[in-house]
Amino acid sequence: MEGLPGAPATGGSVVLRFGQAIFAAISLLCMCLDIEFYGSTAFCFLVTIMGLVIPWSLACALVDALSIYAKRPIHAHGIHSIILVGDWVLSYLSLAASCSVGSASDVLGASGQYSFCIGKVWARYQLGAAMAFLSWSLLFASFLFNLWLLPSL
Amino acid sequence: MEGLPGAPATGGSVVLRFGQAIFAAISLLCMCLDIEFYGSTAFCFLVTIMGLVIPWSLACALVDALSIYAKRPIHAHGIHSIILVGDWVLSYLSLAASCSVGSASDVLGASGQYSFCIGKVWARYQLGAAMAFLSWSLLFASFLFNLWLLPSL
Repeated sequence: MEGLPGAPATGGSVVLRFGQAIFAAISLLCMCLDIEFYGSTAFCFLVTIMGLVIPWSLACALVDALSIYAKRPIHAHGIHSIILVGDWVLSYLSLAASCSVGSASDVLGASGQYSFCIGKVWARYQLGAAMAFLSWSLLFASFLFNLWLLPSL
Repeated sequence: MEGLPGAPATGGSVVLRFGQAIFAAISLLCMCLDIEFYGSTAFCFLVTIMGLVIPWSLACALVDALSIYAKRPIHAHGIHSIILVGDWVLSYLSLAASCSVGSASDVLGASGQYSFCIGKVWARYQLGAAMAFLSWSLLFASFLFNLWLLPSL
């Protein structure tokens, strides 16, 4: 089962982790660069969560890369559980945040009457929400792979 | 561990399930009664999910009540797994839906410039989102109790 592509301590897992971090970073850039993201609670929520996903995913990628380099898969139940719980909590929060921003930007796009929504700024919020959703889907995939391997530890 | 209050086939679990169904029903009433909920995708999403939570929670309450009545706790691994996965999926979806509607109604309340948002209608959407969030929290509690008992089966 540990030969599963995407399982911890494989190349697939490192790719998944980097994908999460990259999508989260693009989402963060869409939300923060040159526009006021602090106008609504939902936008602040997304920025906070994406700011947590990036270091988390990079740390997990580092753990995976180290265990590939040392040719020793993670057998410690404790580390595996921490990664599993972290992925689980962040997947809940990132899904909630991306849905929040998606719906808020949808309403903004339809009304176009918000003080900080001049021009096509809402389209950038929507792009940020889409990137956060992609980051969530990869985070969820990592979580499922970890969950699948839990009984074998 | 099966004496845990809130564990499946206990009175606590039945109370949790009824709580989920009641909060979901109030949320549904807030969203649907006399107002146009189909104006935004987020509102339709919440209505769909709450429409799924009510029969799910009532069915689980029935299973719990039957197993209390028959004085035989659920030992079948299959039924337990189905309940666990159902709770898990619905808890993800209901959190996402309640956050979506919460943020959309927040933006509506601040702008007040939406075709179907006359008067204080957005406050009702917010109440619907809050009730959905309460329903999610009880659903999540049920999920955690089920997850806790899984290894003992």
